[in-house]
Amino acid sequence: MSERNTPDVVVVGSVAFDSVQTPKARHDKLLGGSASYTGVASALFAKTGLVGVVGEDFPQEYTDVFTDSGMDLQGLQREKGKTFHWDGIYEDNMNNRRTNSTDLNVFADFNPIIPADYRESPFLCLGNIAPALQAHVLDQMEEKPFVVLDTMDLWINTTREDLLKVIARVDLLTVNEHEARHLTGKGSLLKAAQKILDLGPTYALIKKGEHGAFLMSREDILIVPAWPLVEVLDPTGAGDTFAGGLIGTLAARGRVDREGFRQALVNATVTAAYTCEAFSVDRLRQVSRRELDARAEEFRNMLP
Amino acid sequence: MSERNTPDVVVVGSVAFDSVQTPKARHDKLLGGSASYTGVASALFAKTGLVGVVGEDFPQEYTDVFTDSGMDLQGLQREKGKTFHWDGIYEDNMNNRRTNSTDLNVFADFNPIIPADYRESPFLCLGNIAPALQAHVLDQMEEKPFVVLDTMDLWINTTREDLLKVIARVDLLTVNEHEARHLTGKGSLLKAAQKILDLGPTYALIKKGEHGAFLMSREDILIVPAWPLVEVLDPTGAGDTFAGGLIGTLAARGRVDREGFRQALVNATVTAAYTCEAFSVDRLRQVSRRELDARAEEFRNMLP
Repeated sequence: MSERNTPDVVVVGSVAFDSVQTPKARHDKLLGGSASYTGVASALFAKTGLVGVVGEDFPQEYTDVFTDSGMDLQGLQREKGKTFHWDGIYEDNMNNRRTNSTDLNVFADFNPIIPADYRESPFLCLGNIAPALQAHVLDQMEEKPFVVLDTMDLWINTTREDLLKVIARVDLLTVNEHEARHLTGKGSLLKAAQKILDLGPTYALIKKGEHGAFLMSREDILIVPAWPLVEVLDPTGAGDTFAGGLIGTLAARGRVDREGFRQALVNATVTAAYTCEAFSVDRLRQVSRRELDARAEEFRNMLP
Repeated sequence: MSERNTPDVVVVGSVAFDSVQTPKARHDKLLGGSASYTGVASALFAKTGLVGVVGEDFPQEYTDVFTDSGMDLQGLQREKGKTFHWDGIYEDNMNNRRTNSTDLNVFADFNPIIPADYRESPFLCLGNIAPALQAHVLDQMEEKPFVVLDTMDLWINTTREDLLKVIARVDLLTVNEHEARHLTGKGSLLKAAQKILDLGPTYALIKKGEHGAFLMSREDILIVPAWPLVEVLDPTGAGDTFAGGLIGTLAARGRVDREGFRQALVNATVTAAYTCEAFSVDRLRQVSRRELDARAEEFRNMLP
């Protein structure tokens, strides 16, 4: 019986082409998707395996981005057809994001299959896909990992029951402030986080974009401001990056505790800022661990 | 020649009656005004003298609030007529503040006179009054103090030249995010803060309400989130309280340095939260220094 080559973190989610327009520039068919951002960020800290699907048009160049980041691609399926393509625009001085088109393509029939090597991974990040698929991934794990779950308005609106079921099975739910209010019906983000804990998870992570984030458990709260960015070039994927930086740091530590979350929130903040500094993962993938650690230290020093 | 009884901090600003309506309650003729909030907060940390004006209708009960807080009232003038009265309402789930009426009364002719005992105070907080009056206060100081200046939209709109002149004479300008953008014409708060430094002050403090605050100098930045408040009863005076907690802490330390600002931002955050927990200074004035220090420690522990 051969040893399994188990990654520290398994990231499941979308891999996509993003066409993004900002007030200053437009770029077509960038490497995008939740699993891309989360995976590249997580791989900065820990051995990371990717589970996703791409079409025949997905270029070697983009696969190389993943492998150059140190990711394992056993779980990346290549199917007949085209890669998921999102087209969006940032308006009103970057404050408003509007979707021009979403072509699901091969992602419409995505059936996440967890490779044997991944089934005992201790950390699992379930990116924003249908809750039933997220549950299907959980069913395939042979050891119960620490699970981070992301979701979005679409699933809150259309598959709420499935979503609540899968939320009850995970350790940490990560949502942005709008999703937190939408999911829980609470205007106060602190009350929304408390309500999320009532749904099952041990931790609720509320992301507030330029205003930072906070992590709540029944006994504790950690609050982190955002890295001070003078200019945001493209915020696409910042939330996914945040989740990747967080889970990668926890996995590198090998256990989940308060000190781990302190480090994880700092690293998550810093990685998310790198994502905002360029389109796609263009800045994030070029960051050395040394640069990142230096910025994390600088960030800690900005806090009182 | 007698020794002067010099306070550590002199606070100049409005003393007022506030009538405040929130979605849950209405209270009339509460103790309000920028100098009241700033003074009570500052007095928690350092010997504080108040410079302001009230009318014949200002009750002993409210003067007692000041003296019970340990403030020196040599600089509090009592004039013929009525006390400044502001009437406002918080709408849309507390997110929008609207003024019903502003009766300046004796405040319309306020001529701040700095008592001899106050003229060598090392710290001066110039609350939100006309820039020409702020300059007049500066002219009366015999030693150059460390000066914190607050302002508001009214002065940015109506007396911009006077305002720019007085800004150039102070050490720290404190404004909320809206005022920062309005004063500088910059959408990015970081760029707005940089622009404020170009106007003269060594420090720019941008207050972001529930999203915290940041303090910028040419070389440095400190960022602080807000204390996590599940419910805000009345946010009136929170920004003034923040300034008071800040200057009081710096004054108690006796010098202005990075470590002092770290402590000051934590104390400012915590004192401002107490103000939000009740109407007027009702919660703030009952806080013991021991309670406050415990909450400050708790807050520090919430940061990563």
